[in-house]
Amino acid sequence: MGETSKWVTLSITLTISAASAAISVYFWSNRKQADLNDKLITIKELQKSLNQSLEKCAAERQGRIRAQQDLRKAMLQPKTDKLETTYPMAPIGVVRSCFSTRNGTPRQPLVVPLARARLMFDTALVPPASLEGLEEYSHCWIVYVFHLNTDLDKLWKDPSRSKLKAKVRVPRLKGEKMGLFATRSPHRPCPIGLTVAKVESVQGNSILLSGVDLVDGTPVLDVKPYLPYCDSIEGATVPHWVKMDDLLTVASVDFSDEFFTTLTDCWAAIGKKSLYTSPEEFQILIKQVLSWDIRSVSQRTQVEEKYEKTKNDHVDNNEVHNIIYHLNLEGLDVAYRITPNTDVFVERVSLSSK
Amino acid sequence: MGETSKWVTLSITLTISAASAAISVYFWSNRKQADLNDKLITIKELQKSLNQSLEKCAAERQGRIRAQQDLRKAMLQPKTDKLETTYPMAPIGVVRSCFSTRNGTPRQPLVVPLARARLMFDTALVPPASLEGLEEYSHCWIVYVFHLNTDLDKLWKDPSRSKLKAKVRVPRLKGEKMGLFATRSPHRPCPIGLTVAKVESVQGNSILLSGVDLVDGTPVLDVKPYLPYCDSIEGATVPHWVKMDDLLTVASVDFSDEFFTTLTDCWAAIGKKSLYTSPEEFQILIKQVLSWDIRSVSQRTQVEEKYEKTKNDHVDNNEVHNIIYHLNLEGLDVAYRITPNTDVFVERVSLSSK
Repeated sequence: MGETSKWVTLSITLTISAASAAISVYFWSNRKQADLNDKLITIKELQKSLNQSLEKCAAERQGRIRAQQDLRKAMLQPKTDKLETTYPMAPIGVVRSCFSTRNGTPRQPLVVPLARARLMFDTALVPPASLEGLEEYSHCWIVYVFHLNTDLDKLWKDPSRSKLKAKVRVPRLKGEKMGLFATRSPHRPCPIGLTVAKVESVQGNSILLSGVDLVDGTPVLDVKPYLPYCDSIEGATVPHWVKMDDLLTVASVDFSDEFFTTLTDCWAAIGKKSLYTSPEEFQILIKQVLSWDIRSVSQRTQVEEKYEKTKNDHVDNNEVHNIIYHLNLEGLDVAYRITPNTDVFVERVSLSSK
Repeated sequence: MGETSKWVTLSITLTISAASAAISVYFWSNRKQADLNDKLITIKELQKSLNQSLEKCAAERQGRIRAQQDLRKAMLQPKTDKLETTYPMAPIGVVRSCFSTRNGTPRQPLVVPLARARLMFDTALVPPASLEGLEEYSHCWIVYVFHLNTDLDKLWKDPSRSKLKAKVRVPRLKGEKMGLFATRSPHRPCPIGLTVAKVESVQGNSILLSGVDLVDGTPVLDVKPYLPYCDSIEGATVPHWVKMDDLLTVASVDFSDEFFTTLTDCWAAIGKKSLYTSPEEFQILIKQVLSWDIRSVSQRTQVEEKYEKTKNDHVDNNEVHNIIYHLNLEGLDVAYRITPNTDVFVERVSLSSK
């Protein structure tokens, strides 16, 4: 082969080599490109995940902030006098009353002078020192919660969903209604009760009261001394449809022959915890409580209707005379009858099952 | 040039071309590699961001869950009447009073007969029908919140951290203290105030009252009719260290010559919103309010000391006579002087800056 062939061979070899190299590099870089594409796809996916995560983060954050705002609102220290603020009132004590149930609990303070209650205070909230001097007043106010209201849970619900009745029946208007704020009905937006009682004594972290009209277990928000020059208003007037004699007195109260025996039998069980010093004193309480017709309006009406019916039918009205009513004082069940003439006969006392 | 040269040239050209191509591809793929490296870095950063975001997400989620749990606890409906139960009381209205600040607000109801306030009710909670009949009573109770207590936030805190003082100073005992429940001090576990007022009229969802001792902005929890046979106790007694004359009357109240002009000047600004029908009526209010020495104990003591000092030093006591006191009624600043003999001179009225 001549020099020409050598050069040709050499050139062709170089060309093929170069071409091969180029092709290799090409394929290599294609793979790199594919690799790159993969990476680009990965990047796209990562970015998508990141965006989703950031969105979720933002949503959780919003949820957290909203929950914290609601919490702050629920716990908020009021800085304005806006009506949206709610004040959480924690009772300072509870009433331990001779009246175990609402039935029989007077509807007015002081009308049952021997009606006693002991206001038991939470020592953490009411150290005994804070009561010093209160016994020097003859009377005090008790600010309490109408805790037996069946709709009490409304306090924790949205006020716009309240089913509070704007008007309530007034007995003396024969079923006609008046605005609730023109009454002392327990069913009010804020179920706060106000009553007065006679201060008997202060012992440690409890106050002994008399003339109470509170049922056992009543939560107490506050106690204030009664100041006649502030609280007793001469010449204050009320509408004609409000009268004190909503309380009906009975004609007489008598006790059966075995009554006192049943009472002394029970006294062993309750004597120690009783607010009364003797069964004799307890009997006076019973007499005072039953001096008012404590039956409900419907009970009274039922009896009156039955009585009218038996009179008209000339039928023996024993049934009317023999309805036994019950009154629960200090856990003792007092059974009594009451005639249409409102003569009360107290039959017996027994330990209440409640 | 012969054929050899042509081949050589061709070969060299091809070789150079191939080499160039290879070199280009090489550099191109290098850039791609760099690109790829960049992408790899980007991927690393994205993964890092994603991890951070996921962590943050988890943290926000935890925070949200915790806040929601706390919220549920705060809103939990209580099922028992344990003392731990807290009753959230939402005000039903707010007092719009002639007394813009505590200074000057009477400490007893009814002692300033012309002191007026309008009880504005939240119509959602207190529909106008609920007030029907209230105007037929001469007086009513207002149960309110001592919203200006500086420790009001204790209601939302752990009660064991309360710094409530068990005993408070009683003025008539010259600094000696009595239990807080033997007083009507605002600083009580439940900051609930009780006062009475005369019912002037009921208009829609507001009540106009007179003889008030409430400051503007007071949140109202309840309104109850005043029932003399329940609320007015004959023969109620108080300790010797409680006396009505804690209120000190002044010797006289007079007005400067230009007083009425300054009042009529201001009347244009407040007249429309005023609880009073004329500047003349407003002047009577001022006279009634300033008939009681409304200065604080320390202000009075300061002046007494200065007066004693100037008397002893035989120095002209103009300084004592010339202290200007201020009273804010319905946003009007009433400037007055009071001599050591408690003769009051009302200088002028101006629009209050507050």
